[in-house]
Amino acid sequence: MNSKNGETLICALGGLGEVGKNMYVVMHEDELFIIDCGVMFPEDDLMGIDYVLADYSILKTMQNKIKGLIITHGHEDHIGGIPFLLQNIEIPVIYTPNIASKLIKNKLSERNIKVPKMVTVNEDLIIKTKYFNIEFFTTTHSIPDSFGMAITTKNGTIVETGDFKFDLTPIGPVANMGKMARIGNEGVTLLLADSTNALLPGFSNSESVVDEALAEIFAENTTSRIILATFASNIYRLTHIVETCKENNRKIVIFGRSMNTSIEIAMECGYIKDKDIFISSEEANKLPPSKVCLLCTGSQGEPLAALSRIANGNDRNITLMPNDTVIFSSSPIPGNAMSINRIINKLYLKGAKVYTNASESNVHTSGHARQDELKLLLRLIRPKYFMPMHGEYRMLASHANLATLCDVKEENTFINKNGDILAMKDGEVYRKGSIPINDIYVDGSRIGDVGVSLIKDRKIMSTDGVLVVILNLDLENKKMVIEPNITTRGFVVVNDNQELIKKIQDKTNIITLNELEKDNFSLTDLKNRIILEINSYVIELTGRRPMIIPMILNVK
Amino acid sequence: MNSKNGETLICALGGLGEVGKNMYVVMHEDELFIIDCGVMFPEDDLMGIDYVLADYSILKTMQNKIKGLIITHGHEDHIGGIPFLLQNIEIPVIYTPNIASKLIKNKLSERNIKVPKMVTVNEDLIIKTKYFNIEFFTTTHSIPDSFGMAITTKNGTIVETGDFKFDLTPIGPVANMGKMARIGNEGVTLLLADSTNALLPGFSNSESVVDEALAEIFAENTTSRIILATFASNIYRLTHIVETCKENNRKIVIFGRSMNTSIEIAMECGYIKDKDIFISSEEANKLPPSKVCLLCTGSQGEPLAALSRIANGNDRNITLMPNDTVIFSSSPIPGNAMSINRIINKLYLKGAKVYTNASESNVHTSGHARQDELKLLLRLIRPKYFMPMHGEYRMLASHANLATLCDVKEENTFINKNGDILAMKDGEVYRKGSIPINDIYVDGSRIGDVGVSLIKDRKIMSTDGVLVVILNLDLENKKMVIEPNITTRGFVVVNDNQELIKKIQDKTNIITLNELEKDNFSLTDLKNRIILEINSYVIELTGRRPMIIPMILNVK
Repeated sequence: MNSKNGETLICALGGLGEVGKNMYVVMHEDELFIIDCGVMFPEDDLMGIDYVLADYSILKTMQNKIKGLIITHGHEDHIGGIPFLLQNIEIPVIYTPNIASKLIKNKLSERNIKVPKMVTVNEDLIIKTKYFNIEFFTTTHSIPDSFGMAITTKNGTIVETGDFKFDLTPIGPVANMGKMARIGNEGVTLLLADSTNALLPGFSNSESVVDEALAEIFAENTTSRIILATFASNIYRLTHIVETCKENNRKIVIFGRSMNTSIEIAMECGYIKDKDIFISSEEANKLPPSKVCLLCTGSQGEPLAALSRIANGNDRNITLMPNDTVIFSSSPIPGNAMSINRIINKLYLKGAKVYTNASESNVHTSGHARQDELKLLLRLIRPKYFMPMHGEYRMLASHANLATLCDVKEENTFINKNGDILAMKDGEVYRKGSIPINDIYVDGSRIGDVGVSLIKDRKIMSTDGVLVVILNLDLENKKMVIEPNITTRGFVVVNDNQELIKKIQDKTNIITLNELEKDNFSLTDLKNRIILEINSYVIELTGRRPMIIPMILNVK
Repeated sequence: MNSKNGETLICALGGLGEVGKNMYVVMHEDELFIIDCGVMFPEDDLMGIDYVLADYSILKTMQNKIKGLIITHGHEDHIGGIPFLLQNIEIPVIYTPNIASKLIKNKLSERNIKVPKMVTVNEDLIIKTKYFNIEFFTTTHSIPDSFGMAITTKNGTIVETGDFKFDLTPIGPVANMGKMARIGNEGVTLLLADSTNALLPGFSNSESVVDEALAEIFAENTTSRIILATFASNIYRLTHIVETCKENNRKIVIFGRSMNTSIEIAMECGYIKDKDIFISSEEANKLPPSKVCLLCTGSQGEPLAALSRIANGNDRNITLMPNDTVIFSSSPIPGNAMSINRIINKLYLKGAKVYTNASESNVHTSGHARQDELKLLLRLIRPKYFMPMHGEYRMLASHANLATLCDVKEENTFINKNGDILAMKDGEVYRKGSIPINDIYVDGSRIGDVGVSLIKDRKIMSTDGVLVVILNLDLENKKMVIEPNITTRGFVVVNDNQELIKKIQDKTNIITLNELEKDNFSLTDLKNRIILEINSYVIELTGRRPMIIPMILNVK
């Protein structure tokens, strides 16, 4: 990736073909800006992986060009990768909106990472360098302080929306459509826009509708305790939940670490003013149910989060009561549906009344624009070229299709993969090769050292366990020192299967003696025979395929 | 569970609090009927489990009372457990509808299990014993030959619906509402009804609407090849797909073993008449795309099924072409959403056009009644007591609520768990304790020997792998024979982490030498210290928690 001939280059390091780990790069000659640096939470089949990071390895080779990291808003899929990035790449300055900056500082201090220079993004900020002029416009999203940006170079203007929706009656500021239109009027060459909800028709609900729906549920359930689970980062939602509790004379108990952090930041920034409304669970247990609201994390069914603990009866402080009213003010992220269902079923079984986005369509609204909102954006920005970003391929494809309905030529839309490079020159945009991109896995405290083979091993062990076969040989004299030893985990219960284990031991014994007799004895042959023959023998006996681990020790 | 004092007892062994493994028991004095015997496909967190069975252990103690097994229809969650049941319990006769009987015979012959006596269920059959009189009524469901039943004893009449929906313009026979109403008119004490879609409002789409929607898609895509994935067991769907292909001059290639079986049974039973429409993939590859339809399994994203192979480019015979049209004539079963999304994204990336139930609401309809259909059933049957069955607790709760809207008294509804017993006596129904019920796991060829601890081990290994620590000791002389050996799988890549492995080895060495020096040396203490100290040492070094397997060998 090299910007020569006066071209401006645009490339996604993460965020295309996926929902998560957003990271985009814009570069001109020797100047490079990074936009966002998110994580992705792994799917179930990435066994044991904690996070997936965007592949920033290319940045190492361009260290001296990096002018700064620009953050659009404070969600994990836009800021979660920063601690890992800063350990590998030097970032001279992070341009970030207010709430995001507090969340980033929090994140860095937790890991003892030095906070780099930070400059606050707002509508007054203009980042001006040799080749770039970057200005920002307010958007509406499910966290305060969300911005899109217009990046102007001599080749044209690029608009990057960040995550956004339109909400004509938001809680919080309305998107600056005037500024978007002005930028559109001045001419936009390339638009990069959020595709998360590009498959959903219509216009999304206003946050004010959610406010009303929650108020109604509070009004209908005046005698029972209310347990409300929502996304901790949705500070506007927290603001109006606090207001609703206040109007209904309910005190609030906060559950979950990220909820605590959010409430603190919301108070610091003035989104929540009434500190006295928050009480401890001990105090709450002394109040009648009608005076209490539990505000908790775990709306995605996360097994360790507050709501799961409460539903499972594992919470030290709170016991579920048969008349509790539980509200999921959230929507299930695909892949979490089963975990959420499990919790809902437990709540029903214990007699609680449950409101979800499925039963009551208005207890949650998404922070991402649906099709009609995406069209509105396209009409305001009126780009010549369009690259849908932030979404799986089917979302990107649907979004590109919407753009053609809004007068972008089909050949001017780019459905890209991470690493694909676009070049902009004199108002034209065209493909310019691509760089290889991998997912980077974080497992425990180690970054990037878990590869496909390790995950494959974990998968095998996850379904049928391991069978360790230990041979103590005297290799010099080609003799077995002691009988083969077998141990297993996750395969069968050893105590109930002595006979089976004996059979495997005998089989190993025969294979080993047979190999030892050979003139051309080799350890590799012995190992391979044990793996192959014990494997098929075990399948025959049990129908299972544990991972066979042969360990051959040389004892003199 | 004992029927004395002239009570009739009703109990679910499976099917409550879950969607799957339906199995219900009705008993009076020394006569017992089993209704259905299904399997459940395990959720992701049941590592390596192939099937979950209903707990039929109670039946062993009542072997001599069993009069027969009654099957309502041929879906896996109603017949899949039969091979396992027959290996443990003697069933004198299976009463089964026609299609189900063919599927059961197929299943049994695959496993070399003797087929017991079978009697065909149809509307003319009446099962009459000392205490029971059982008659059947035709229902509409997503497989032909689906029946509900009315079970009359001197204590009252029980209606069990099996799986059903109402479809006023079905493909195939319409439900016998006249007979249902007649049974209702004669007085029903207890209704057991399918709750699968009790959370969904309204009336479900007719299969005729699906027929039309598919015809439209065929008409819109006349030049491209059509790849159609659907549930193999939905024989009505297969029937009208074959008709649609015929009208559009397309030949059909069948992909997937269960699809083959279904098509064969459908031809045997006269649901499909045109045998010449089916061709091989070799023949299809010689035809223009416009003349071909691939009919395949894998609509749930199953990684080994035909559609996955095609999307991944792993199919020997079929290569995806950029203009292929792919139709998912199915809806995602919760928990499969991620796998399906992954396939859809791959199809988009390769340029295929994709129709799903989300994009086109009419390419699939469920076989289960929605709320308005459930109310219609309640109005036809007019039961005094109601026990929702076949569903998760939130579905059962919603269904019970619907019953109260249709004049069943709230105190006459029973939201039960598997094993809960209801007694019916002189037209009254009341709770009568419960029997303990477990899930039975099938893993490989072995039934029931995988317990919670084994699954827990598999979970640990699935996230962080194993670390095997082998000590060769001369226990008599309390000496180490060779240095500790370490091997791992799924933890770290050994070749890249020699230093780490060395550190663990050294640590083990120190612990072992230290223990060997002790006067009161014990193997258990040594093992425990290795597990505890290596575990925390490894967490400290890597942040990972592999399963530590210490193996201590005594070498003289």
